[in-house]
Amino acid sequence: MFIDINADVGESFGQYRIGNDEALLKQITSANIACGYHAGDHHVMHKTVQLAVGNRVAIGAHPGLPDLMGFGRRAMAVAKEDVFNMVVYQVGALQAFARLYGQEVAHVKPHGALYNMAATDMVIAEAIASAVKNIDSGLILFGLSGSALVEAGRDAGLGVAEEVFADRTYQPDGTLTPRSRPDAVIHDIGAAVSQAVRMVKEGTVIATDGSIVPIKADTICIHGDEPQAPAFAQQLRYQLANHGILVRKLGG
Amino acid sequence: MFIDINADVGESFGQYRIGNDEALLKQITSANIACGYHAGDHHVMHKTVQLAVGNRVAIGAHPGLPDLMGFGRRAMAVAKEDVFNMVVYQVGALQAFARLYGQEVAHVKPHGALYNMAATDMVIAEAIASAVKNIDSGLILFGLSGSALVEAGRDAGLGVAEEVFADRTYQPDGTLTPRSRPDAVIHDIGAAVSQAVRMVKEGTVIATDGSIVPIKADTICIHGDEPQAPAFAQQLRYQLANHGILVRKLGG
Amino acid sequence: MFIDINADVGESFGQYRIGNDEALLKQITSANIACGYHAGDHHVMHKTVQLAVGNRVAIGAHPGLPDLMGFGRRAMAVAKEDVFNMVVYQVGALQAFARLYGQEVAHVKPHGALYNMAATDMVIAEAIASAVKNIDSGLILFGLSGSALVEAGRDAGLGVAEEVFADRTYQPDGTLTPRSRPDAVIHDIGAAVSQAVRMVKEGTVIATDGSIVPIKADTICIHGDEPQAPAFAQQLRYQLANHGILVRKLGG
Amino acid sequence: MFIDINADVGESFGQYRIGNDEALLKQITSANIACGYHAGDHHVMHKTVQLAVGNRVAIGAHPGLPDLMGFGRRAMAVAKEDVFNMVVYQVGALQAFARLYGQEVAHVKPHGALYNMAATDMVIAEAIASAVKNIDSGLILFGLSGSALVEAGRDAGLGVAEEVFADRTYQPDGTLTPRSRPDAVIHDIGAAVSQAVRMVKEGTVIATDGSIVPIKADTICIHGDEPQAPAFAQQLRYQLANHGILVRKLGG
Repeated sequence: MFIDINADVGESFGQYRIGNDEALLKQITSANIACGYHAGDHHVMHKTVQLAVGNRVAIGAHPGLPDLMGFGRRAMAVAKEDVFNMVVYQVGALQAFARLYGQEVAHVKPHGALYNMAATDMVIAEAIASAVKNIDSGLILFGLSGSALVEAGRDAGLGVAEEVFADRTYQPDGTLTPRSRPDAVIHDIGAAVSQAVRMVKEGTVIATDGSIVPIKADTICIHGDEPQAPAFAQQLRYQLANHGILVRKLGG
Repeated sequence: MFIDINADVGESFGQYRIGNDEALLKQITSANIACGYHAGDHHVMHKTVQLAVGNRVAIGAHPGLPDLMGFGRRAMAVAKEDVFNMVVYQVGALQAFARLYGQEVAHVKPHGALYNMAATDMVIAEAIASAVKNIDSGLILFGLSGSALVEAGRDAGLGVAEEVFADRTYQPDGTLTPRSRPDAVIHDIGAAVSQAVRMVKEGTVIATDGSIVPIKADTICIHGDEPQAPAFAQQLRYQLANHGILVRKLGG
Repeated sequence: MFIDINADVGESFGQYRIGNDEALLKQITSANIACGYHAGDHHVMHKTVQLAVGNRVAIGAHPGLPDLMGFGRRAMAVAKEDVFNMVVYQVGALQAFARLYGQEVAHVKPHGALYNMAATDMVIAEAIASAVKNIDSGLILFGLSGSALVEAGRDAGLGVAEEVFADRTYQPDGTLTPRSRPDAVIHDIGAAVSQAVRMVKEGTVIATDGSIVPIKADTICIHGDEPQAPAFAQQLRYQLANHGILVRKLGG
Repeated sequence: MFIDINADVGESFGQYRIGNDEALLKQITSANIACGYHAGDHHVMHKTVQLAVGNRVAIGAHPGLPDLMGFGRRAMAVAKEDVFNMVVYQVGALQAFARLYGQEVAHVKPHGALYNMAATDMVIAEAIASAVKNIDSGLILFGLSGSALVEAGRDAGLGVAEEVFADRTYQPDGTLTPRSRPDAVIHDIGAAVSQAVRMVKEGTVIATDGSIVPIKADTICIHGDEPQAPAFAQQLRYQLANHGILVRKLGG
């Protein structure tokens, strides 16, 4: 039994620092590296690729909307071709840094508002899947478990990783509880770890109404911008190991 | 006897249009495509790559300083690593668009202030050459004929194209007359074409003081942002043909 | 009987040119000057203010969403405080240029997606009205005739100018026909001028279904980015004069 | 005997945080607030103005080069008009936020590379002084003690504050020791405080060669981006008080 652990990294910019990438990259198996639109710059990308290579972590592109001020978290009315082209641009830029080290970008996970839009809007989802497929049909597309993006990726013939969240609660229909609600986030580390283990081991999650909901978990997301992220990741790995679940990157 | 003709294209941005790329790409053999830092955006890059492919023009990256407001023409105090990383980022982004069409980026020509700094500053020149070499050692580096960039490219073991200008005058030492001087630009199309033919056929140029100066011409630059650029290119090709000089892209 | 004629100007950026501001500013009475978020830069703002002063045209701020690539035309999920602060910032920057010439910014008209969102979303409309009121309660707020923005401006105690379009068709409920529909734009200059005269003189417009709809017209918008804009403005002024309607700026 | 203490604040951007403005604004008397070019955004500006007002700290504009990635620290080849207009734009934007609270911007201090260029390049210095004078002749211009900027400010008839650094060493000619040299920064808080007291009380500083150099100190700069900045400021104020020096803002 296997699971991948991913985190968003490389989100610093110029003089600005976010996240503790050095510590986090020791705990995860897939790195989603910002590509300069919502966060990151060419220095940060290079340094983060180096860190990923040094830690044998899979290099992934984390393309976002062109909105540094909003950190890519504000939905924008973007056309299908716009989404296609912004994914090509950002993934291409990261590929060049990976290839400096003889590595290939292994996966693509859209960021923030682009990720959320792609979860429910099939036009956006298909534009992303089409871009990824055309860039490199061997790329794995990461999407919210059960989302339109996962479906679009499969339809495009891509390898797909269904993503789950240890520290977010779920609705009876399998969707994430919106962040606007008070019970959206699981603050207790033990509870979050337990949810993750259940999702991987049993393929289910206990929704906010107590019902047991089936869920597919190929990769677990760690929120890298929180200070306790490395500690949480360490505890998660320990408990996964206790349950006989091997943490390893996908496609390898 | 051969010569390449290149032009800067893909310099539009969003709603803003510069240049007549459709006409110009019918006349040139190498396209230097802006990569989003000083000009261009992911849409313009995609469309320009499509036009280059359709016209069998060599696809080149035209990386610039991160200064859209200044169109990459303002010198900036950039560190060596900064130059390296900004070239990797921009070339990588363009590579992804080229590969959508089964093509490879064939050459790299820095833009504006970056080009000028690389002509005389060996630190900048080496940073560019190193980036290009590490991205793909098969890339051809375009630089001002006789410049530090050409030297750095050779030292790095890259294929190098020495660039000349039909419509700029030259000093007795083989450098371009600075634009601040009234005799910097050759406005007469016939005179510019003649200068180009001489540079290719005889390997010399007549400097502003009347002396004959040796110059190496692998590629001639056409200024694409001027309205008469396509007409000038057409006349240049006609006269080159009259002198038995074949216009074709480099490396092929 | 009076009417104001306004146009969006100062939308060039760096090396990029849009519109024929010099000609247009001879024909209009209110200039909506881009403030650097969706278009314009500090040079263009300064030059456009100079042109407005020289032509005795009212100086207005034209704040937009922070989206140069999308020219401020892509809707974004912006919070109320975000809208408030982006209006303060942009209007403040323009005020400083106006005051170099002893002038005051006279009005504020939001641009593109911000204008459209403010037409129907009262939260956005109130944020804009509140910002304008707090910057200078003597500022006139321009909004689509009958829109939420006009209502929010009145509620805030601001002077309000209801804006109509000569070259856009209207629905029976008084709203603009969406641009996605084939009959959205009136291409015939004579018909557009006639519609404008009717709106000013009779306070009505003939909707696409032939019904006569009441409409309030304080200011007519000319689309400055179209090549025939100055010619259209000239003809409009001529016909307005023929009908005894004086073209003059508001508030004076 | 009086002295002003200033610090650069409001340098956060979007999700990115730099500095501890809340603590720092309790210790200083003049705040240099970033205006969105090298750092800061419209939210950060608004919040920082609120903090300054709440702490009765003088509101100053801190305009920088348009280079967020480089934090305004990379010299750029900017023309005189470019400097003039970028100062007008940024100061104007901040004025609008100050006026929301019935306050006026009291001073202008250029940031980073713009500050350094203005210290020695009279063309840049005059462009800044001219912009400040034309915006509001009552503004106080902050410049490095003894610099071209101070001279240009005086020539323009502006009130000028000569700025000194407690934690930087000085050369026998009164200039700052370049940061590239190992003895550029005074790391010992006690020594830095002593230097500041001497500069204010005696109008001299001990240069790196031991010579005593005259220096004019109207305002002392605290580096706000260092974690110990609030603690340092507190100790500085304590020692200044011990020597009978009153810390208060200029012009009041």
